[in-house]
Amino acid sequence: MRRWTHCVVHPKKEPAIDALDPSVTVADIGEFALIDRSVRGRVHPPSTLLGPGDDAAVVAAPDGRVVATTDMLMQDKHFRLDWSSPRDIGRKAIAQNGADIAAMGARCTGFLVALGCPSSLSVSVVDELNEGMWEEAVRAGAAVVGGDVVGSTQLVISITALGDLEGRRPVLRSGARPGDVVALRGDSGRSAAGLALLEAGDVRFPELILSHRVPQPHYESGPAAAIAGATSMADISDGLVADLTHIAEASGVDVDLDSEVLTPSDELNSAAESLGLDALQWILTGGEDHALVGTFPSTATLPDGWRRIGRVTGGGGSVTVEGRPVEGTPGWTSF
Amino acid sequence: MRRWTHCVVHPKKEPAIDALDPSVTVADIGEFALIDRSVRGRVHPPSTLLGPGDDAAVVAAPDGRVVATTDMLMQDKHFRLDWSSPRDIGRKAIAQNGADIAAMGARCTGFLVALGCPSSLSVSVVDELNEGMWEEAVRAGAAVVGGDVVGSTQLVISITALGDLEGRRPVLRSGARPGDVVALRGDSGRSAAGLALLEAGDVRFPELILSHRVPQPHYESGPAAAIAGATSMADISDGLVADLTHIAEASGVDVDLDSEVLTPSDELNSAAESLGLDALQWILTGGEDHALVGTFPSTATLPDGWRRIGRVTGGGGSVTVEGRPVEGTPGWTSF
Repeated sequence: MRRWTHCVVHPKKEPAIDALDPSVTVADIGEFALIDRSVRGRVHPPSTLLGPGDDAAVVAAPDGRVVATTDMLMQDKHFRLDWSSPRDIGRKAIAQNGADIAAMGARCTGFLVALGCPSSLSVSVVDELNEGMWEEAVRAGAAVVGGDVVGSTQLVISITALGDLEGRRPVLRSGARPGDVVALRGDSGRSAAGLALLEAGDVRFPELILSHRVPQPHYESGPAAAIAGATSMADISDGLVADLTHIAEASGVDVDLDSEVLTPSDELNSAAESLGLDALQWILTGGEDHALVGTFPSTATLPDGWRRIGRVTGGGGSVTVEGRPVEGTPGWTSF
Repeated sequence: MRRWTHCVVHPKKEPAIDALDPSVTVADIGEFALIDRSVRGRVHPPSTLLGPGDDAAVVAAPDGRVVATTDMLMQDKHFRLDWSSPRDIGRKAIAQNGADIAAMGARCTGFLVALGCPSSLSVSVVDELNEGMWEEAVRAGAAVVGGDVVGSTQLVISITALGDLEGRRPVLRSGARPGDVVALRGDSGRSAAGLALLEAGDVRFPELILSHRVPQPHYESGPAAAIAGATSMADISDGLVADLTHIAEASGVDVDLDSEVLTPSDELNSAAESLGLDALQWILTGGEDHALVGTFPSTATLPDGWRRIGRVTGGGGSVTVEGRPVEGTPGWTSF
């Protein structure tokens, strides 16, 4: 076991690492060299007060609080090396954690990465994972500030994301109130469609497959929603209806979706027809899009990119579409 | 995949969970129930501003910075379920992360736990892991504020620890200066002795075995060292000489240890004799004690519990004992 934080701190603008022959394994170069390749030449934003190289990192928390969340991704359960490039897997690992920070109305300030690698793993896979993680961390406005590398029987990636609320109250799941508007930022169903295409070995609709491989959260839309007065928010990791059910249950309200949210794009419809599947199901129950869903007072102006998809009513934790339960979800009876 | 942060927030003083029959597996009760058992009835300290139940936790960071570190523990590599109880494994997982926070001179403010569990794992193992993690988190002055549970082929525990510097500068590895005193807080070698006893199936010396199973960092001694003016600090995870070498290299100094630090206790000597091993090697090169080692100006008064073990000289990253390289370490030629 060698922590990233054990390695010597490098000047921030050292030359980047050289690519290695793909036959070189993690066991060949050892953990210290692996760590060195992870941290060398990286440029940190001002929020990284102390980066890799010591027992721990130090990250700015300007308003005296830090938002923190963690997600673990397991090979062949959350990702497949034959379906996604290591770079895409790295991006997705950071994205799904960063989306949780955004869903609190916060901005990302740092990521920590713990990596379990089989000793036979090619170093080039780890290099690409790191590239992807850094790429997405920068997209989220932050950096990879620390980590750990250990031996493992399967590839496992555990990420912790940190964030800053900029003086605002966190936007909880429990704040939705009857009369609020339900709004969505981003797309729902595209990741599920991409997964179904990969499972079917169907290489058409590359954009949908890309949506599964690399979800692209709108990080800035979380703080924007908070500023606009969002009363509740979540990121869509389990599915639109499932995550709205969490909000409905936590808030003690019902959510009724407008039927127009059920209108799939031509692309989704074509993919569904090609596979003999239902595009509506993807939209309502497909997970991993990491779009943001939230509720706003009816008087609020929705921030850029957010669109109304329904409304909050008094009730007890159910989600319906035009008053009807949704097929394939816990409340389903018929649709 | 279900994040702890997805579960409903429970009142802090709900009745604790009931014990389940050990034959009940993780797959039997499912991930939501598993998460529920992890968070129900827990009492959080004031530093937990928002605990489990939302997309992310919120933790106090009073001075506008947060210290953060992560370590991953893998079954059969970092722990064995036939050598340690799940409770002890949980304690150790938190302890080794908390010790990293202390080694920066900071106080622990929160822990996040990502857990990968085989579906056949007994729920009672997870319950005991959680008990151990909570027990040690409380010992460290903090709480488990969030987490994630996923399916896995082997048990894997990934912890992130957060800490507060209380307005002080972090104590880095790079601050040791010639003339400084080297001091140790805690014991070195006991964990290695315990591991050797477990490997040999020798059940005598239960206190040494306990030291391996449950390292007991002196969390409060990290901030105390910082207040006393420590110029550098690290926790001993890789071994006394290895971790002092990190300090020597980062600071551009040499470290020379006093020979009296080489005097093993009667207990260590007896265990070593019984196994035909060398107690000195345990002290110098054994890891996982999670004692703290640091350097202080020669004029500083060492805080309670710290004892002088050597001195810093000008040089280039070597660690010696009375001027001689140490056997079994990178600089070794003879001893």
